[in-house]
Amino acid sequence: MMNEPGNDMVYVDAAEMKSLFCTILMRYGVPKNDAGLVAQTITESSVDGVYTHGVNRFARLIKNIKDGIVSLHVYPEKVSYFGGLEQWNGGSGIGIINALQCTERAMELASQKGIGCLALANTNHWLRGGSYGWKAAKAGFVFIGWTNTIANMPAWNATDNRLGNNPIVFAIPFNEEAIVLDMAVSQFSYGMLELSAMKGEKLPVAGGFDADGNVTDDPTKIIESKLPLPIGYWKGAGLSLVLDILATILSAGDSTAQITGKGEEQGLSQIFICIDLKKLQNFNVIHNTIEGIIKDYQDSKVATGKSIQYPGERVLATRKRNMKSGIPVVKTIWEEIVALQYNS
Amino acid sequence: MMNEPGNDMVYVDAAEMKSLFCTILMRYGVPKNDAGLVAQTITESSVDGVYTHGVNRFARLIKNIKDGIVSLHVYPEKVSYFGGLEQWNGGSGIGIINALQCTERAMELASQKGIGCLALANTNHWLRGGSYGWKAAKAGFVFIGWTNTIANMPAWNATDNRLGNNPIVFAIPFNEEAIVLDMAVSQFSYGMLELSAMKGEKLPVAGGFDADGNVTDDPTKIIESKLPLPIGYWKGAGLSLVLDILATILSAGDSTAQITGKGEEQGLSQIFICIDLKKLQNFNVIHNTIEGIIKDYQDSKVATGKSIQYPGERVLATRKRNMKSGIPVVKTIWEEIVALQYNS
Repeated sequence: MMNEPGNDMVYVDAAEMKSLFCTILMRYGVPKNDAGLVAQTITESSVDGVYTHGVNRFARLIKNIKDGIVSLHVYPEKVSYFGGLEQWNGGSGIGIINALQCTERAMELASQKGIGCLALANTNHWLRGGSYGWKAAKAGFVFIGWTNTIANMPAWNATDNRLGNNPIVFAIPFNEEAIVLDMAVSQFSYGMLELSAMKGEKLPVAGGFDADGNVTDDPTKIIESKLPLPIGYWKGAGLSLVLDILATILSAGDSTAQITGKGEEQGLSQIFICIDLKKLQNFNVIHNTIEGIIKDYQDSKVATGKSIQYPGERVLATRKRNMKSGIPVVKTIWEEIVALQYNS
Repeated sequence: MMNEPGNDMVYVDAAEMKSLFCTILMRYGVPKNDAGLVAQTITESSVDGVYTHGVNRFARLIKNIKDGIVSLHVYPEKVSYFGGLEQWNGGSGIGIINALQCTERAMELASQKGIGCLALANTNHWLRGGSYGWKAAKAGFVFIGWTNTIANMPAWNATDNRLGNNPIVFAIPFNEEAIVLDMAVSQFSYGMLELSAMKGEKLPVAGGFDADGNVTDDPTKIIESKLPLPIGYWKGAGLSLVLDILATILSAGDSTAQITGKGEEQGLSQIFICIDLKKLQNFNVIHNTIEGIIKDYQDSKVATGKSIQYPGERVLATRKRNMKSGIPVVKTIWEEIVALQYNS
């Protein structure tokens, strides 16, 4: 479900959202400091318009805490290291807390070694991968990171799901903000498929397979088959496989196949690579260089009625709007969250 | 032009091909050692079935040497470094020689620091990116590398080309060979478009835009518009942009926009990242871990009449066949190469 006009919406002030998240998290046993960080991260994702991995997923995080899939009072521990390469174990802790700490550590490593690669095993859903990219890039670091997931996408020529949609994030400091590409390797999220199906619309491009294995732009058929399309067809399927292998072997953690065997998504493997741009001899001209590239990109001839944006650019506009007018939340979703503060 | 039945083909023995390449390269002034390495690399790519970036591109390399785009007797030099991060300058040298040396150095860096990232400015076309992935992976290293290119792909919503198809390579040691994903971020190469057009066939999936900006699977229309489709549409366009920015700023080299301004593709920026798996505490079980992932992947339910292969798997079969029966080369392409030994 997307937070778009047409649904019955409420507009929630960011500070109010964060405060409520924090209250609820603490009610469910999350230590105060962790609760604050998780509340802030999920609120920021919502402010940025990434509702599916923000406010819309909050109730599920609480459920995962209640069900014991997400453990509390545990933090990532370093298992082994060599130079700029480190393996950490997330102890089944809160995915956001683990990912924030590992991003911090990857930045620290990069400060010491130029480039740092931290591989994290046994963690939980990090919600919005872009959170860690924005964080690192705003601190002056290039960030490349990815996660594996439960199987939710078919191999090329397959009719069942053995691959994850393994989101990958590239973030680069720019204009005191960042250029952030935060993408799953499936063409559309299930959230987008559901929204299009609800509206009775076709997808803008092919998004998956129907029950007979034909590529289709009909979201209803893809929701039925549960077979979304990898970006670039065979290419995205290959990309998913190598991202899973790398996350698994570098972290000594679980693969998509092993995660899928657990039934519920948990015990993920993730990669956090940071590069410290301040260590480069051309550091002082990097901003100008990027500006030149973006200018040329935006000087493209534009198709009628369209616009050209770099990855992350739309986020800045959404952020501004949502900070001013409140974060749009589907009313039923917000009511469910509000009710959580009275449950236990 | 692809090397497929239907064209008038010759079958060339690998040793003979390598020897002829070496002779011709030396005739055009390439030092003996470099000529041997370049001949070997291009022959290996051809043996592996990557003809478009192997034998089919040899005559163009010779032309680039004649035209002075590719300089001889120059080798990459380290410009600056910090820890596991190094900037090198390729001095407009032979792309293959530069990339081989930088791969070697990235492996050395990884041996010392766990992970090494080498950024190379001012180099030339590396032909097949996978060459460097196979090399590093067979030596026990994970390899992640990419190159920018001249603009040959549109931004999303654009009607002219401002992005490169920026090939990216992921390679992982496996079974004394490797899993190698070697992909441009465009859905199809121009070679594939030309082959399909020649056969009068539609593409298996949408591959670009027609002159009116509509997505099409008609290769002729894409060749006319010169607007191929990025993998995953907006996602591949975003990926291309961030790969270009990273290659450019990390190497202090030229961007796709700057390369395009030169008219002919030259002075590229490339990234070579290696990770030394031997430094991981789980090194001894990594092969089994990958085997488990590949087994699950190949246990997928397969669509009727199809098969499921991991990236690089088909290469091994092609290699075996071409080593036995000779490398298939379009007759006119081979005749052009043979004639080069008598020219100067």
